[in-house]
Amino acid sequence: MNLIILFPDDFLDPQRVRLTGRRLAHVRDTHRAVLGDSLNVGLLAGLMGTGLITRLDEEALEMDVALDQPPPPKLPLTLVLALPRPKVLNRVLASAASLGVAHIHLINAWKVEKSYWKSPRMAEENLHHQRLLGLEQAKDTVLPELHIHRLFRPFVEDVLPTIVEGTQALVGHPGAPEPCPRHIHQPITLAVGPEGGWIEAELASLIRAGFCPVDLGPRILRTETAVAALVGRLF
Amino acid sequence: MNLIILFPDDFLDPQRVRLTGRRLAHVRDTHRAVLGDSLNVGLLAGLMGTGLITRLDEEALEMDVALDQPPPPKLPLTLVLALPRPKVLNRVLASAASLGVAHIHLINAWKVEKSYWKSPRMAEENLHHQRLLGLEQAKDTVLPELHIHRLFRPFVEDVLPTIVEGTQALVGHPGAPEPCPRHIHQPITLAVGPEGGWIEAELASLIRAGFCPVDLGPRILRTETAVAALVGRLF
Repeated sequence: MNLIILFPDDFLDPQRVRLTGRRLAHVRDTHRAVLGDSLNVGLLAGLMGTGLITRLDEEALEMDVALDQPPPPKLPLTLVLALPRPKVLNRVLASAASLGVAHIHLINAWKVEKSYWKSPRMAEENLHHQRLLGLEQAKDTVLPELHIHRLFRPFVEDVLPTIVEGTQALVGHPGAPEPCPRHIHQPITLAVGPEGGWIEAELASLIRAGFCPVDLGPRILRTETAVAALVGRLF
Repeated sequence: MNLIILFPDDFLDPQRVRLTGRRLAHVRDTHRAVLGDSLNVGLLAGLMGTGLITRLDEEALEMDVALDQPPPPKLPLTLVLALPRPKVLNRVLASAASLGVAHIHLINAWKVEKSYWKSPRMAEENLHHQRLLGLEQAKDTVLPELHIHRLFRPFVEDVLPTIVEGTQALVGHPGAPEPCPRHIHQPITLAVGPEGGWIEAELASLIRAGFCPVDLGPRILRTETAVAALVGRLF
């Protein structure tokens, strides 16, 4: 936790917060902070700054906070992600949030197992929490926006063309004649398939929606590794 | 498991293998393969090809194998990694192996907790297994070489200069005047610090050993995310 995210409910008055629960435990057990220490804090969707510890005991952490720095800019990147396995989903959301991805669309695909949609990790609270972990890691306060589309075809035909407009839209496809470009100076929409890849009909739909298939090399990477490597390459 | 790694002991004769244990279970339960199916196989440190299933039951998987393709080339990259938390270590080794990193040196640093060195995950067998998982994921047969250096100073003063020779050596350091370069056409040695970063004396030692400090941007990434993003950026 390189940044402690604050919520409006934490504020006792505009300069003072009181925290309990997970954040209190983390500051006591991991930071091993003491009275008078300063911590990095940031208001969710707002400014970042420092919190001076004025109380720290079993019940609560209280800080005087000064918030004066903007969070780092987001990457102009929209990820369109075939829903990964629940365990991978958590890591991908945290990792994408830490990398500064602006928008994430979780979508269905032929090779997405139906059971993934019913996982407890798809609960709103978990989807929020994993992205929050990414912000705490990276020192950012702005969640990537998350959208969920249970049906492939209506999303690709009705929603995706609007998302793609004004961006360079790329979809990884083994054997595509174009290699993935690098260091692009414009907004990007990036589609990442399920384990096992897109089927041909899905790829054709994505191409109709404006995506260019690009080859990502001979190695098959896990989704969270692929996303990080692509972000490093594209920006 | 996109590739089933074969070991010399698996061979009944030069064209025939018998597998049991984890690989048998995976082919039965996850691949749900049947007699007559073909699987991607590769001999550890050797060629890749296909295996035609000639027997598949509770006791064993037998295949006729034809090995004729070379594994994908390694990246000319040596990672010098401050030993991460045990849980992160597993993910970093698998992820680095999948990305094609050629050499990994795990080293000590001031902010590496001593307990990390005593973790069961540091057992030879686990260090081998995690890298193997990366090869199975990426379809590669060549393990990244792994070296462990329990003492920082002797490694940096006596070993590192030889490693660095003939490579571009980079160490991430927040606020360095140079941004991290991109798309480099020469071998790279990349030093990645512990959570909390290198201390100044360590950074000075790395600079004396030939490393150039580079700024990686305002976001603090988890080790495995940082390694993947840097690989994407540098190659």
